[in-house]
Amino acid sequence: MKTLLVICDGIGDRPIKEFRGKTPLEEAKTPNLDKLAERGINGLMNSIIFPVRPGSDVSHLSIFGYNINEYYSGRGPFEALGIGLDLKKGDVALRANLGTVENGTIKDRRAGRIESKLFEKELQGIKIEGIEFIVKAGTGHRVAIVMRGKKLSPNISDSDPHETEKNVLKVKALDESEEAEFTARILNQFLEKTHKILEKHSENKKRKLKANYLLTRGAGEFLEIPSMQEKYGLKSVCVAGAGLYKGISKAIGMKIVDVKEATGKLDTNIDAKFDSAIKALKENDFVFVHIKGTDLCGENGDAKAKKEFIEKIDKAAEVLTGLKNTLIVVTADHSTPCELKAHSGDPVPIVFCGPGVRTDSVKEFGERSCAKGGLHRIIGMQIMPEIMNLSGKAELLGA
Amino acid sequence: MKTLLVICDGIGDRPIKEFRGKTPLEEAKTPNLDKLAERGINGLMNSIIFPVRPGSDVSHLSIFGYNINEYYSGRGPFEALGIGLDLKKGDVALRANLGTVENGTIKDRRAGRIESKLFEKELQGIKIEGIEFIVKAGTGHRVAIVMRGKKLSPNISDSDPHETEKNVLKVKALDESEEAEFTARILNQFLEKTHKILEKHSENKKRKLKANYLLTRGAGEFLEIPSMQEKYGLKSVCVAGAGLYKGISKAIGMKIVDVKEATGKLDTNIDAKFDSAIKALKENDFVFVHIKGTDLCGENGDAKAKKEFIEKIDKAAEVLTGLKNTLIVVTADHSTPCELKAHSGDPVPIVFCGPGVRTDSVKEFGERSCAKGGLHRIIGMQIMPEIMNLSGKAELLGA
Repeated sequence: MKTLLVICDGIGDRPIKEFRGKTPLEEAKTPNLDKLAERGINGLMNSIIFPVRPGSDVSHLSIFGYNINEYYSGRGPFEALGIGLDLKKGDVALRANLGTVENGTIKDRRAGRIESKLFEKELQGIKIEGIEFIVKAGTGHRVAIVMRGKKLSPNISDSDPHETEKNVLKVKALDESEEAEFTARILNQFLEKTHKILEKHSENKKRKLKANYLLTRGAGEFLEIPSMQEKYGLKSVCVAGAGLYKGISKAIGMKIVDVKEATGKLDTNIDAKFDSAIKALKENDFVFVHIKGTDLCGENGDAKAKKEFIEKIDKAAEVLTGLKNTLIVVTADHSTPCELKAHSGDPVPIVFCGPGVRTDSVKEFGERSCAKGGLHRIIGMQIMPEIMNLSGKAELLGA
Repeated sequence: MKTLLVICDGIGDRPIKEFRGKTPLEEAKTPNLDKLAERGINGLMNSIIFPVRPGSDVSHLSIFGYNINEYYSGRGPFEALGIGLDLKKGDVALRANLGTVENGTIKDRRAGRIESKLFEKELQGIKIEGIEFIVKAGTGHRVAIVMRGKKLSPNISDSDPHETEKNVLKVKALDESEEAEFTARILNQFLEKTHKILEKHSENKKRKLKANYLLTRGAGEFLEIPSMQEKYGLKSVCVAGAGLYKGISKAIGMKIVDVKEATGKLDTNIDAKFDSAIKALKENDFVFVHIKGTDLCGENGDAKAKKEFIEKIDKAAEVLTGLKNTLIVVTADHSTPCELKAHSGDPVPIVFCGPGVRTDSVKEFGERSCAKGGLHRIIGMQIMPEIMNLSGKAELLGA
């Protein structure tokens, strides 16, 4: 049996006043998701444990069955992988924004949403005390920085204070190790050096908001992670628009299928993603589809847009209701309630639909309907074992 | 958002024959608690893990999110704090009864429910091998003893055999450490010394049941515990009648609000407690109200009294149903079934009611109704994280 896992990022929400206390998912017309719920077994899921408030990175690792205490030290490496960098064991990778800094104070964290691509070339080739710095532009103002060399530690603080009108921060070691002290010290040197380079950059001459500072965050070490093939024997594929999800998938050895119209935004073409996914199912055991729009609407606090985007997902999901001999799992990584404009620890609905599944009496895919499902409440680390169980691939414990 | 946590000690019960199989909570008329259940999200809660049979001390620590393996070594320190003693790191504190002992045999574990206050003064100032003994009277026959000095261990047995007509026990070390041997040895010396002092005490001359022996139990070391402010950033207040709950609250840095008519017994004034709590909410983030009566009825095996006391709680709870912008959590520390006259491992109902909460279809606050709620089954250590989550104060894990 093949498995299709669909993660609707941040789909879970809280009661919305304009929806008479319903959530966007409950308010949306979702005949196809409801069909999956009716034919499947449903429950509530927290990617870590109820009610931890998780980031997208740790949520996805947990959903794929990877212990974050073992395989996670920061988001940087996954972002770097996601925009196409290749990492080596021991690399420390960071995310950064190209921002505007005047006299040490941040004027714009995104330098007017500049394209970092324009500055990429001039930031290459810097080496400090034996450590090589690799810089690659992401989408818009985003940048990934890889530090390569010996004795590096990811245990360092951000230079990004995450607010404008605040001072740029000195990077500090977060433990007392030599490695952390060293990494912080030379990263500070790198940031000063690139600051000078950027100040003089020709692109900045014509700009009011100069893209003159790398605001770093999310340092993480690239750790060797067993692949989905090694861990589960599953030939696996990722269909995603946004970089992080491609990066995580790459880290666990999934093949990345690029879908041109998968933007990771509200204008994404979900039909095209599901089509690619269904094609990929023919040659693979496990296909992961990531849909980002629901999370973006939650972070914008726009319940109406979230409801409409969910209806867009549902329309595209019609094709899933006809799939044969496939275990379909639909869930989210976490809730992103519109009232919070941020992730929350509230659980998300989950459905397993496919041959052999014990059904329940749930007829609607929603936060409160799925709470009454036969699965009750599970955590992310239980999803892959249940997939293995339902697809007849689980190993026997004991005898 | 502010939080009001109401613990109805031991409210959970088992089916009662005279109530046609209902529990006291199910049999009681509780329109106000039911209103909270209807407006909130409900579930079952075990303070430790289902179905551990927990004491009140470990239950409360767990509910406040403190790992008992790290912060609990015995009840003594919390009782001592609760009656107003100040403790220092390394102190070993014990609970004791003033009892009647004749020729080494216990005649009355409470010396006819004597007032220990009458004997407090004569028991002060004893020092043995560098260890200072501080004695303070609690309510009635109860006493707290603090041992202060170097190399003490809480790992010692009770002198109280917990039954009359049994012999007073020699205190023994419960491990093979020097510290435990030393602590047991000098505590035995202290108990002999105070026995002699009490024998000759003028108060005992006129009494048939002489208050002549300190029956010790619950030795515990005073451990430094991070405060609620440090742990959660919450300015916190406790409204309780009984000493233990004040002691635990004091240990975790809560401010104690004394309510004159809060007796920790059935005659307590719950209206006055809720009034104080609501006043305290204005200046604080988190208010904990403890109500003891339900537990007392359970320990007396009196289902009718328990039902009536629950109705008394409900009447007072009317004021809670009108609170705005407040997360109200009502639960218990454990069940105290009347048939057992003791704590049990049966879970207790819990409701979270406030802005943003995903409601469920539960309409009554009770053991079996809440079992069908949207929260399903949680443990004590999940309560504070959920409070932080619902009030938008939870930290993000990952990114």
